[in-house]
Amino acid sequence: MRRDLKKNTAEVSPAVINRLPRYYRYLRELLRQGILRISSGELSEKMNVTASQIRQDLNCFGGFGQQGYGYNVTYLCSKISDILGVSNGFTSVIVGTGNMGRALAGSTMFEHRGVNLIGLFDNAPSVIGQIVDGYQVMDVETLPAFAEKYHIDIAILTVPKAEAETVAQKILSSGIRAIWNFSSAEILQENPVAIVENVHMGDSLMKLMYELRTAEENTGR
Amino acid sequence: MRRDLKKNTAEVSPAVINRLPRYYRYLRELLRQGILRISSGELSEKMNVTASQIRQDLNCFGGFGQQGYGYNVTYLCSKISDILGVSNGFTSVIVGTGNMGRALAGSTMFEHRGVNLIGLFDNAPSVIGQIVDGYQVMDVETLPAFAEKYHIDIAILTVPKAEAETVAQKILSSGIRAIWNFSSAEILQENPVAIVENVHMGDSLMKLMYELRTAEENTGR
Repeated sequence: MRRDLKKNTAEVSPAVINRLPRYYRYLRELLRQGILRISSGELSEKMNVTASQIRQDLNCFGGFGQQGYGYNVTYLCSKISDILGVSNGFTSVIVGTGNMGRALAGSTMFEHRGVNLIGLFDNAPSVIGQIVDGYQVMDVETLPAFAEKYHIDIAILTVPKAEAETVAQKILSSGIRAIWNFSSAEILQENPVAIVENVHMGDSLMKLMYELRTAEENTGR
Repeated sequence: MRRDLKKNTAEVSPAVINRLPRYYRYLRELLRQGILRISSGELSEKMNVTASQIRQDLNCFGGFGQQGYGYNVTYLCSKISDILGVSNGFTSVIVGTGNMGRALAGSTMFEHRGVNLIGLFDNAPSVIGQIVDGYQVMDVETLPAFAEKYHIDIAILTVPKAEAETVAQKILSSGIRAIWNFSSAEILQENPVAIVENVHMGDSLMKLMYELRTAEENTGR
């Protein structure tokens, strides 16, 4: 099974991979609405992507669609889940229990993506020991011991920028391989097996600003 | 000036526009380091994008680079600022002063993009009146009156999913044109002039999960 998946995804371009999370969201929404099959035309309308783009993207993974029948939403959703690692059951911890850490701890994002959040950490004595969304916040000094006891796949880094680099190195030296980085600091990837994904929310704000600027020019405000 | 900008950006593809915020981030970092000119080769290495892609992207806006001299970082940064509306001085409010609203209120993201955050709103009596990062949280019921008094370009929507649609309609009927949507709810854009940018942080998590899954398969974990 694993080998098949690898073979199927080997030739998938990064651009397609980038679009998969969006397909996953839409397909999950269809499942919630009880829609079990959909044509590329209908999906195209919902997602505001051309039908040919959809067919091209989804055909990368081989034979999802059937002429005249459309896509089997359950099958497609589970296949994309496999590709994106949703079915891997990754474990994660949040490091930095400030406002951003708390906002994430309270979100359904992890559960919806098969990620198991197993601990919250902070370095402030006033925060350590607090109960946040059912988790008792632990001292970040105990992270290496915790990581030795429980396998942790992903650390979600929500500490202030000034502390980010030091904390990131502690995370990696604890044997945690992936960092989802919310601090605006660049994390040096000296560790060749480390995987760092930086969240740049400001880029999304700038897209909005661009839309607003061009819209205002067009309406002559 | 405005007209020139419009002319220059008219033929810029959405793909290039999507990449501009990232150029903006790197160029700002260069300015902070006192680097005032850079070749496409050096920028390419820093950004992990091919030099020819960079030349192609930046040449869209006309004659930034000079053969043998490279790019003038100050000029390029200010030009991209204009295109992305950084120099428009947009005003914004945060609607929903929970953990996410507070995390955003405390970030330097707005200031760095020329966006002026002028108010925080919530509907909970226990939150209204609190001082958060120097702002006194206002009752969301007073948003229409506030929007009438002060021009607001962007509302940052950080309310729970169940309330998002109602609050979004209140925002739009207050004459605020753009919504930066952090709630996982889809906002209906019945209003043809409304601009909604949805933040899907989970998509970034899934990219990380994909990297992790493929890395683990390659190392045979």
